[in-house]
Amino acid sequence: MVTIRPPGPPDPCVPAAMRAAVLFGPGDLRVVDRPVPEPRAGEVLVRVAMCGTCGTDLKILDGHFPQTPPYGEHIPGHEWTGTVVATGSTVDEVAPGDRVCIEAHHGCGRCGNCLTGRYTACLNYGDPAKGHRATGMTSNGGFAQYAVHHVSALYRLPARVTDEDAVLITTAGTGLYGLDTAGAYIAGQDVAVFGPGPVGLMTAQVCKRLGATRVILVGTRESRLRLGRELGADHALNAREVDPVGTVLDLTDGLGVDLAIEASGSPDVPEQCGRVTRRGGKILFLAYYPEPVRLDLSAIVRKDITMYTARGEGGDNVRRAVALAAAGMLRAGELVTHRFPLEDIAEAFRVLRERDGDPLKIVIVP
Amino acid sequence: MVTIRPPGPPDPCVPAAMRAAVLFGPGDLRVVDRPVPEPRAGEVLVRVAMCGTCGTDLKILDGHFPQTPPYGEHIPGHEWTGTVVATGSTVDEVAPGDRVCIEAHHGCGRCGNCLTGRYTACLNYGDPAKGHRATGMTSNGGFAQYAVHHVSALYRLPARVTDEDAVLITTAGTGLYGLDTAGAYIAGQDVAVFGPGPVGLMTAQVCKRLGATRVILVGTRESRLRLGRELGADHALNAREVDPVGTVLDLTDGLGVDLAIEASGSPDVPEQCGRVTRRGGKILFLAYYPEPVRLDLSAIVRKDITMYTARGEGGDNVRRAVALAAAGMLRAGELVTHRFPLEDIAEAFRVLRERDGDPLKIVIVP
Amino acid sequence: MVTIRPPGPPDPCVPAAMRAAVLFGPGDLRVVDRPVPEPRAGEVLVRVAMCGTCGTDLKILDGHFPQTPPYGEHIPGHEWTGTVVATGSTVDEVAPGDRVCIEAHHGCGRCGNCLTGRYTACLNYGDPAKGHRATGMTSNGGFAQYAVHHVSALYRLPARVTDEDAVLITTAGTGLYGLDTAGAYIAGQDVAVFGPGPVGLMTAQVCKRLGATRVILVGTRESRLRLGRELGADHALNAREVDPVGTVLDLTDGLGVDLAIEASGSPDVPEQCGRVTRRGGKILFLAYYPEPVRLDLSAIVRKDITMYTARGEGGDNVRRAVALAAAGMLRAGELVTHRFPLEDIAEAFRVLRERDGDPLKIVIVP
Amino acid sequence: MVTIRPPGPPDPCVPAAMRAAVLFGPGDLRVVDRPVPEPRAGEVLVRVAMCGTCGTDLKILDGHFPQTPPYGEHIPGHEWTGTVVATGSTVDEVAPGDRVCIEAHHGCGRCGNCLTGRYTACLNYGDPAKGHRATGMTSNGGFAQYAVHHVSALYRLPARVTDEDAVLITTAGTGLYGLDTAGAYIAGQDVAVFGPGPVGLMTAQVCKRLGATRVILVGTRESRLRLGRELGADHALNAREVDPVGTVLDLTDGLGVDLAIEASGSPDVPEQCGRVTRRGGKILFLAYYPEPVRLDLSAIVRKDITMYTARGEGGDNVRRAVALAAAGMLRAGELVTHRFPLEDIAEAFRVLRERDGDPLKIVIVP
Repeated sequence: MVTIRPPGPPDPCVPAAMRAAVLFGPGDLRVVDRPVPEPRAGEVLVRVAMCGTCGTDLKILDGHFPQTPPYGEHIPGHEWTGTVVATGSTVDEVAPGDRVCIEAHHGCGRCGNCLTGRYTACLNYGDPAKGHRATGMTSNGGFAQYAVHHVSALYRLPARVTDEDAVLITTAGTGLYGLDTAGAYIAGQDVAVFGPGPVGLMTAQVCKRLGATRVILVGTRESRLRLGRELGADHALNAREVDPVGTVLDLTDGLGVDLAIEASGSPDVPEQCGRVTRRGGKILFLAYYPEPVRLDLSAIVRKDITMYTARGEGGDNVRRAVALAAAGMLRAGELVTHRFPLEDIAEAFRVLRERDGDPLKIVIVP
Repeated sequence: MVTIRPPGPPDPCVPAAMRAAVLFGPGDLRVVDRPVPEPRAGEVLVRVAMCGTCGTDLKILDGHFPQTPPYGEHIPGHEWTGTVVATGSTVDEVAPGDRVCIEAHHGCGRCGNCLTGRYTACLNYGDPAKGHRATGMTSNGGFAQYAVHHVSALYRLPARVTDEDAVLITTAGTGLYGLDTAGAYIAGQDVAVFGPGPVGLMTAQVCKRLGATRVILVGTRESRLRLGRELGADHALNAREVDPVGTVLDLTDGLGVDLAIEASGSPDVPEQCGRVTRRGGKILFLAYYPEPVRLDLSAIVRKDITMYTARGEGGDNVRRAVALAAAGMLRAGELVTHRFPLEDIAEAFRVLRERDGDPLKIVIVP
Repeated sequence: MVTIRPPGPPDPCVPAAMRAAVLFGPGDLRVVDRPVPEPRAGEVLVRVAMCGTCGTDLKILDGHFPQTPPYGEHIPGHEWTGTVVATGSTVDEVAPGDRVCIEAHHGCGRCGNCLTGRYTACLNYGDPAKGHRATGMTSNGGFAQYAVHHVSALYRLPARVTDEDAVLITTAGTGLYGLDTAGAYIAGQDVAVFGPGPVGLMTAQVCKRLGATRVILVGTRESRLRLGRELGADHALNAREVDPVGTVLDLTDGLGVDLAIEASGSPDVPEQCGRVTRRGGKILFLAYYPEPVRLDLSAIVRKDITMYTARGEGGDNVRRAVALAAAGMLRAGELVTHRFPLEDIAEAFRVLRERDGDPLKIVIVP
Repeated sequence: MVTIRPPGPPDPCVPAAMRAAVLFGPGDLRVVDRPVPEPRAGEVLVRVAMCGTCGTDLKILDGHFPQTPPYGEHIPGHEWTGTVVATGSTVDEVAPGDRVCIEAHHGCGRCGNCLTGRYTACLNYGDPAKGHRATGMTSNGGFAQYAVHHVSALYRLPARVTDEDAVLITTAGTGLYGLDTAGAYIAGQDVAVFGPGPVGLMTAQVCKRLGATRVILVGTRESRLRLGRELGADHALNAREVDPVGTVLDLTDGLGVDLAIEASGSPDVPEQCGRVTRRGGKILFLAYYPEPVRLDLSAIVRKDITMYTARGEGGDNVRRAVALAAAGMLRAGELVTHRFPLEDIAEAFRVLRERDGDPLKIVIVP
């Protein structure tokens, strides 16, 4: 039997206060002093080394994410990594000094969805009293010098995985969770990935590593398509230059791909996914849309296509992503194009929102 | 080992010619004389007792179904039942005198989809040379006195199953195949079924028989909703009188159903399915739409919902439907509201198209 | 969002002390006074109405179950039902006055198995500090007037479900969990169930309710086989009178069953399961054996058979079992053949061990 | 729609007669002249370049394989590769000149197992009239200069795949089919593979390529263990030198592996698989045993372990194996240690049976 180690000696240098980016209202993110949080039973305190930014953060900043902590308290940031400095009671899975990366969600552990392994769909989503937390979203996250998370959502990192890698491992976890829900047996399959953002690039790369025959990446920005090719995509199509549907069909002998992955968030792409997917194939939706999409559902039914979705990084997929990175099978950190100190977080979000300098993954270093 | 019986003695009374409804062009269905077809290896000749009509027949009649036999040859009809009168070589699974019902599809048996059990998505769909046939659609069907089908698509009937039941067993097979793709474990689940046509009513009934806790049927015609209640639906909502989304949510403590089944073909209903399905739930699409649908896909992704589809009656689901009917667990034949002799098939389709007299399932008796 | 009700007012009549059967050493179970336990966060205090006994209790009494609480503290009993009298903080799923039944296991919620929905295989099994509890086994259970359990493992009962039913619902949960792991799509399948004890009888019954074509029960005691027939088995074979393997093959046209369920615990029966299962079929093991079994594994590999197991009542299967009982689809309570007051628990276990009077399910009424 | 190419012009150099190894009785395999077979509808004639030998051939030679063609006609050999020289009617998937590898089984396409994608468990196994064939086993195979097979079981080879590779691709197909039945999501999993024969070595290698964290190979012959390490096994244990169970547990922090693969055929190894597999884990049996095995089934049930099996190379797994080899992700041909001309096939089987010179894969070059 596993015996519980007493909580490791907390790092003696943990201060009482820290700098943190706190949301005071829509668009009003300020870097202020806050007490360093204390880990309760099952929780871990981490000194944050780096925290990624993503489109969901923009929704949060704009006040469009329900179930967050109240203004004046909420510290966003859900793609962070760092070093354990203290552990709450019962925790022996990690110890001070361990470098860790995270997944965002910890479920309540008591609803029907958590009990059947689907805690990203926790029926007590946003209810911290019952134990649910989605770091940076429904509880405080990583745009701060320290952050607390439940041990179920932490994964130890080997030395070869850098902080930049660790931020993108969370992203890869989303792709892997999506593949997991869709069967995860990619070897020998043809895959189209729409949207070469961080999720799309990591997922395309994972598909290639897991043996996909042809990975066809579709996007609109040449810099991202180029990176996609370097990461393993067999074809990278610029939808501004070629008809992506016709080209994917041409590349697959008119049959279409076994699996289409939608990671663009562009409302006209789901329909393209339906058109490039072969009879009996699958579509995986990993994106969110600014408006309802228009879909030729009849054609999808007629082709016996199943449509999967994934929110966040469920299952044990972040653990799997760490394993792939540890084995040198994932190139991750090179997606980081911009670094900002925590005090400049407002500027970081301006760059993200305005796509100033074609950023791919912008990280905050607190 | 199973030994092959010599093909049973063909029924000596099979004539050389038969009456059959042949499509000569869009809207031009004529009842004419045709030679009785001969069963080849693996095939079976059946004297048709009854053949159902459905919405797909209207598409076929209007010339909107690809891959049919040429005008002047094509005999539609894909929901038929009858008595075996002759068997082709190698057939010992059925013998003359056996009453049988059918599933529409027989796959090529050699493409990647057939080899993995998804023959309704056969990659050689519509290619008879390679062995594919979808009776009444890509090969000749049951609007005739005799029809040939592959033995893989025939199921023997016990005496207690009537001809009317047998027509609806094919319909139930679609619902069961859909449930099969969606996991098929319905016991203790809440289910909403949109569209109380034959597919919706049979599927709602099956869900209840397999232990669904609450089956909520949503429709617009009172006669169908009433029948749905009789067949086991716990609630039958008239969407002209109540808000179906709000009511389903109310009936399920605000959570929504585990499984929403879309069998209406109404373009605004898929969006309603997304709204009534709980986090981590499932949607099953069994219908076709006259136009693209508009879907809040973000909400579906955010709720980790998987979307299944089913075309036709794959897997061994018609066999399962026969078993349920044989055990008295399905009420089927009572969905038949109208009967027409083959010579009046044009009138039958007028009634179907104009919904004259609120028909539910119209059958042709050749 | 679900809001947390303040913990309901505890029943004012809950006393400070209770009678409980405590294990003081191998074979030394004594009914003594103990403090009524207090529910902590997420826990619920239940006044026990009834607690079933089973073979695992004999192992526990004999000191052969690892990871129990220490002698002098351990209260066994893992098939109990009763009425909520108090709730710990954060609990609003049940309230005082609710009648509930249970599943035995509550996982740690943080290991890889719990996170993927397999908490009966919790990697922290037997580690209460990390949150794992298996009532009556690794934590105190229901051979007492009051018991505490985690709310995740409690299910509210409708009035029509009796206490006797509720005890057997836990048993049915094991069968359903086993079916769940094995695909759970029983409609139209042939099933053989070996061992008409409580697990076998409830599982056979469930298979029939979910649409199995032929349920063939195999046992050695006529009284149990008779009850099996009453509960829905199509055939009940006495293995002392007929060769069960040959008879099952005869009943299934020489093919064998789709699914064989082993619930007997007799070491020679797993081999029989292999022989009666058809090519491509499944075997589900729900029993434990006094010694290693001998298996013709080559034949099982040659037939492409998959072998499933289930420990306890995982997934949401007890909830499903409650739903079936609530709908009148399960006959449960009639399996209770003997009732003993708590003070006579030693006599109850003598009757169980010696099979005195052919007991089926013996319950303790504290 | 795919149009059927007329059968390609048959290679003009195909002779009327060929040399072939024909089984005339137990142990009586003779190389004699035989007519070159003609491909019927759906079939393909291949000039055999190479055919592997395996343990099943020894059973066939000894007369212990049921359902073979009669003595005096049967040409064994089920791991062959070669070049298409003629195609039967309806075949356009391959054309003369194409190099192909094979899978052994073509199902009947009409039984319940074939219809649900499990044709290696065809219910008409060994019934050629109904279309079933297992090349070299229930129909004539590849120990000959020419062989006919159904097009469903042929896979085109790119130039970079050698004949030796092609023989081992069939072997890899067995491993992949086994993984497929067991979920096929290997990334980040710990895997133990028992038995470093061709199946074990190819399967271990595939697991590593698909991202397994630790692949632990267990065997008894140092030469094979060394090759296993070269092919990617992280650990290769000699069971004559270390206790394999204890060592695997040590290597996995006492938890055991996620997946144990039994490819040794040694009757005491299945029990070891049970002991090294963690709670909630999986065992995959890919071997056959000379006698019944003895298994602590209680421990397996208590750990919620599922046991999978695979016979042959079902699903689309040979296609997947070809894709991996084509992408340079599989090292295959180097497992071939011995080559014999067809005329020396008796000597080849003596070497195989006596393990003379430690053969790994012996191939026949006709």
